[in-house]
Formats: sequence, structure tokens, C-alpha cells
Amino acid sequence: MTDLRQQALDYHQYPTPGKISVELTTPAETSQDLSLAYSPGVAEPVRAIAENPDDVYKYTGKGNTVAVITNGTAILGLGNLGPMAAKPVMEGKALLFKRFAGINSFDIEVKHKTVEDFISTVANIADSFGGINLEDIKAPECFVIEKALIERCKVPVFHDDQHGTAIVTAAGMINALEIQGKELRNANIVCMGAGAAAIACMELLIKCGAQREKIYMLDTKGVIHTRRDDLNEYKTLFANNTDKRTLEDAIDGADVFVGVSGPNVLSAEHVKLMADKPVIFACSNPDPEIKPELALATRDDLIIATGRSDYPNQVNNVLCFPFIFRGALDVRARTINDEMKIAAVHAIRTLAKEAVPAEVLTASGSDSLTFGKDYIIPKPMDSRLRSAVAIAVAQAAVDSGVAALPMPENYNG
Amino acid sequence: MTDLRQQALDYHQYPTPGKISVELTTPAETSQDLSLAYSPGVAEPVRAIAENPDDVYKYTGKGNTVAVITNGTAILGLGNLGPMAAKPVMEGKALLFKRFAGINSFDIEVKHKTVEDFISTVANIADSFGGINLEDIKAPECFVIEKALIERCKVPVFHDDQHGTAIVTAAGMINALEIQGKELRNANIVCMGAGAAAIACMELLIKCGAQREKIYMLDTKGVIHTRRDDLNEYKTLFANNTDKRTLEDAIDGADVFVGVSGPNVLSAEHVKLMADKPVIFACSNPDPEIKPELALATRDDLIIATGRSDYPNQVNNVLCFPFIFRGALDVRARTINDEMKIAAVHAIRTLAKEAVPAEVLTASGSDSLTFGKDYIIPKPMDSRLRSAVAIAVAQAAVDSGVAALPMPENYNG
Repeated sequence: MTDLRQQALDYHQYPTPGKISVELTTPAETSQDLSLAYSPGVAEPVRAIAENPDDVYKYTGKGNTVAVITNGTAILGLGNLGPMAAKPVMEGKALLFKRFAGINSFDIEVKHKTVEDFISTVANIADSFGGINLEDIKAPECFVIEKALIERCKVPVFHDDQHGTAIVTAAGMINALEIQGKELRNANIVCMGAGAAAIACMELLIKCGAQREKIYMLDTKGVIHTRRDDLNEYKTLFANNTDKRTLEDAIDGADVFVGVSGPNVLSAEHVKLMADKPVIFACSNPDPEIKPELALATRDDLIIATGRSDYPNQVNNVLCFPFIFRGALDVRARTINDEMKIAAVHAIRTLAKEAVPAEVLTASGSDSLTFGKDYIIPKPMDSRLRSAVAIAVAQAAVDSGVAALPMPENYNG
Repeated sequence: MTDLRQQALDYHQYPTPGKISVELTTPAETSQDLSLAYSPGVAEPVRAIAENPDDVYKYTGKGNTVAVITNGTAILGLGNLGPMAAKPVMEGKALLFKRFAGINSFDIEVKHKTVEDFISTVANIADSFGGINLEDIKAPECFVIEKALIERCKVPVFHDDQHGTAIVTAAGMINALEIQGKELRNANIVCMGAGAAAIACMELLIKCGAQREKIYMLDTKGVIHTRRDDLNEYKTLFANNTDKRTLEDAIDGADVFVGVSGPNVLSAEHVKLMADKPVIFACSNPDPEIKPELALATRDDLIIATGRSDYPNQVNNVLCFPFIFRGALDVRARTINDEMKIAAVHAIRTLAKEAVPAEVLTASGSDSLTFGKDYIIPKPMDSRLRSAVAIAVAQAAVDSGVAALPMPENYNG
């Protein structure tokens, strides 16, 4: 076992098992305190909420609480290991919600028989929270689950593996294309992978201007095209009327490669076939579709992003999910709609173009960060993200009519 | 609105809405920290748990987490106000779990159609936690729900309104009878109320030695007797072959009155009819079945307990539930069985007989506490409870074969 592996196990074991705890926000030292926190005093907020349901946001933690919910069917890149094995990841997500956005978050692992069983379980408990972050649920079930829960829940439901990934990818992609002197609407795009993240990334790129017919999506059987009869309804949306069949066919002349698949599927030969000034997002984690050093040794006119923190241009969902929920909760949005997602894309990408303050450089362990090939998206430790993304998302929620509250005065995320 | 009511509302609103938050127990300041807390490091505990399911207790917070779950159908004495109105009570319970026993606890309010729907929702999420505390669920559904969940869940399920109340009542009752020179097995008992708490109290008193045929239980229609044809299966267990019909009939010669019903149903005339040296537990909250000053003015040979903190002998579930879970979690008991409940009864009642340390007097706001008519059970702020009850419960779990772990060395609760 490498040192890093043991370090990770130790980290999860000490000082106590796991990474999060529940703490008191009110005094509970004296009998008098307890008579307010519990019986008889607690009857007052109970009565208030019974009379006016919105008072649940005034007297309980609901409005600043997000549940992180999984069934453990697609844990990281490790596959379907069941709900219990997913618990460290879910607790990690809860930790990130608190660390980055001050949101109280805890994890719920659901054991279920049918998809409907999962949906009704989550729908039945959803009101306990201000929002639901779905996580590590495999495709295509995740699409059915998310759609049903958005319909059935009064609070925002967000499948981060889909939309968090898509938002950060779109932010980085638009910037990378801009640096390369290209535009999304003209780009030939190859998407390696046809799972939840792949489909969500492509759908959001289309909403940001990409053209569906210029996208070649590949699953394990090759290019998804109109003559295939083995496609589910989600892949069918990307069936391209083309003669291209292999990655080699598809990558020829491509401006963009997005990999959400597996390690080392993109070769130097593939990279050579791409158009001038290409953009490669090799997001398979921890081992990307192509190693940046190999890609850059093959040709020097490309921009490459990965999911790794030890290379430039890390595509990391933490740039988005804490803050999209921060904004949604603060105006009490009933959903997270496309307007809010696109607002997040532009808030993230705009931040990468701004001068980086010294404290952000220090936190990111960088000497300098200047918008360009090696800095297309902000760093995860960039403390400006919270305010920038939350403000944009909250404003988009208000403007698109899904917020129960107006923008708070002097709102800062 | 009285000052106390406004104080309670303020308490729930500041510094932030609600009473609990989620906090980090591990460092999350640097990129290196985050690479251990989340990707890629988190993959290590995921793999470990996938290989060895018990490792979930080693690398996640499961083993020290209890969910407080309700459907809001019987909130305090306020009735069926729905899941959202119950949230302040559930958050209060979570606060008490942490404050008294160091257990991380959060609340889940379930909206459901059928009882089976509630059961399967809770069963589906139960593995996320080390234990389930059910709360404020109305009878008779609560009996069906608890039984089904105990069968379906691998972690302890405990309906505190039933068993917490019963344990504290039994502890106080045995002590009160001892002071009066009586024994439970000979006591004539009147139980006013036939809901969840009433039935659980009587069942536990029987397990502690009381005789079922000496118990007269009353519901809104009077004494529960063998010629009634309107009884559910739970009340039927207490159908007494008797000619007594009213509270007046039943109380005549009774040694014990247990009220889990409503305010002022016990009159001075009723009290006069009781046997010599009677014991009255008037537990309706906040207004007891009879005011202690009225009862004591009627006759001075009685012992009276209530649910209130402003009279002696407060029957308060907080004497039990944090510590019964503390003990159960620490030996990883798969259930909370009768042996553990009875161990809790005796641990609590024994503590009342011991000399009270100065710091406990101070915390309880008392000048002196000596075992006797005005001190039959420990005070809620008694810091000795955690150790005493948790040790007894953990040992009972180990001895009765429901613990996955042995007693920890030098275990202190």
C-alpha cells in the first residue's frame, strides 16, 4: 500500500471515524436553555410552522441544509459497489458543501429494489432539507430518477455528476475555444463516453451554443449514429447521421475532444488527426484519456484540461456545486433550471479572466495565474468563487421566476 | 404572547435558523487535505468498505450517528400537525443527543401515504445511520411501524415516546414504591391514557414485576375491560375482567396512578379514594393530570412526579434516550431489547439513591438532593447518567447476545 493510500485511510479514521459531525448552534448548558430548545419552549415554533408553513425556514435549519443522496451504483470511477461503500464519498461531499459554501449537509445512502422505490424514498424525505444533491447514481437510471424527483419535490434537486461536471466543463471549454480563436457554435466535438456526465456535458454545451449535429458521441461500441438499433432514449438524442464509426473516424478534424470515459483511450495518433488548435478535456479520473505530457509532446497548439489537481486546468465539480446551491438556497429557488446553470457557467469562466489576488495565488500554491492555455478555469481554492457563482445563480433564479424570495440586499453569496 | 413564548421563538431564530449544524472533524484547508477527504484519496475507504462491509464503522461516521425520524402525526401533546411542524422538535432531539451523549444526530421528517410507505422509506435509508430514534408518531400506527422496522433494519430502532418514557417511568415508579414501603408486584395500578406511551409504560412495568390483572387502563371511553368490543389489538392486551367502568371506580384503592393523558383529569376527590401512601405520576405536559400542589394539599402521604422541570421528580426522557443509544452504539448492538431497557431502568433508579456530588447539585440548581419523596429519579443535568446508563445498557447488550462488539476496555460511556 502506498503512503498516499495509508494517509487517506488514516484521514478517514482520525480523530474520529468519518469527516463530519453535528454540532449545536444554540446554548444548551442550563435547564433554562433546554426548556427553550426542547419541551416546553419548542412548542412555539411548532405552532408557528403549523400556522404558517414558510416559518420552517425561520425556525429550523431546513433552509441551509442539503442532503447528499446516493444508491452507490456508480461510485467515482469504481462502479456499483453498493450504498455503504459510497458513504465516504457522500460524507466527503458534505464536507465540501460546508467548507466551501457554509451549507450544512449530510449524507443518506439508499438501499432499494426498484427505481420507483428509490424515487419515492427520496421524495418522502425531501421536505426535511433545503435541497437534494444526488450523487454517484448510474445511467440511465439517474435520468429517470432526477426527472421524477424534480417533478415531485418542492426543493431543488441536482445530480452533480451530470450538471456540476457539465457546468465546469462548459466554463472551461468556452474559455479554451476563445483562447484558440474558435467558437462553440462552429466546433466539431468528439465526446468519448455516453454516461450521465457525457450526456449532461453535451446537452449543456448545446445550450451554450454548440450544434448537436457537430457532436460525435461514442460509447463502448463506437460512434453513436442513426443506424444503430441498440441505443437507449438518452443516447438516441445524440445519434448522428454519419458514416463515422470509430474514434479514429470521429477525431479526424475535430476541434474538441471531451473524455468522460476511461484511461488512455486517446492516443498520440488520434491527437495528430485533430484540427488546428484543438481542445482536449481528458476528464477520466485519476487516469485521464491521455496524459497531458504525451498530448503536448505530440503537438504544441493544443489546450488540455484534466480532472487532476497536479496538472493545469483541473475540471473539478467543487468549482460549482457548493455555490450553485448557495445561490439557490439564498433566494429559496424551487428548482435549479437551465438559466441558473448557464449563469454559473459564465460566472466561473469570467472569473478565470480576472486578475488573481495574491491570497488566491497563495491558497492555490501558484506563482502566477494568467488567463491562457494553462489557466482556463479558476482553481478550486479560489475564494472568489463563492460570491461570484452564488450571486449569478441567485440572480438567474430570481429573473427566471423560480425564486420564492427576492435577491437579498447587498447579497454576497 | 408571553415573554417565554417570544424567548423560545428567538432561541430558534438566532444566531441562525434552527439549533444544529454540520461541521468538519478533519482538516480541509489545503489542496492536499481535499485530495484525502475527496477524490482521489476517498477511493481508499470506498474500496476497503466494498471488501469488508464492517469497515464502514472504521472510516465513516455511521457508528456514532442516530437519525431522529418522524411523520409528525403526534407532535408533543399538540397532535397531528404534519412532518414540517415537527422539525423543531426533531432538531431539539438531535441537539439533546449531542449535548448529553456526544452522538451526531440529525432529523428526517417523512411525508408518506400509507404506513407501509413510511416503513419502507425508513428501512431504505436506515443503513446510513448507527441507529434510528422514532419520534412523535401516533398510536396505533407507531406499534406496527416500530415492529416492522425492528425486523427490517440491521441497526437499533427505538421509539422514544414509548420506551424512553417507559424506562424513566419505571425507574421512578420502583423507587417511589420502595419509599412508600410497597412493591410493584402487589400494586394496584391505574393508567389514564391508552396511547403509545401508556401501553409501553404498562408493558415495561409488567416486565419489571407488575401484574397485568392489577392494571386498570382507561381510554377516552373509560376502563378497558373484557366486555368491550371497540378495542384495537394493543388495548385488548390490557382488557381487565372487571366491573369497574370509570376513573372513580378504578382509582378506588389504587396504589399507583400513571397519567399519560391530558390536563386536570385527576381531581382531589379521586386522590382521596386512593390507597394509603399512593404514588401519582401525572405526566401530561405541560399541564399535568393534577397539579402537585393540589394533590399534596389533599393528602400528605403521597409521592407525585410530573413531566415538569419546575416541580420535584421530573419524568424526562432525556434521562434515558441519549445514553441507551450511547451504550447500544458502543457495542454495536443490533437492537435495543428488553434486557437493555431493564438495565437502563435499574441504572437510572440506582443513581437516585447515591450521594449527589456538588457539581451535579450546582448544575441542577439544587441545594441538596437526598433519595426520598422529593427525589425519586436523577435530575436531567446529572452528568453521572451518561456513564451509569451507557455501561449498564452496553453490558446488557453483550450479555444478551445482541452486541457485535465486546465491552470496550475501561468503558465509561
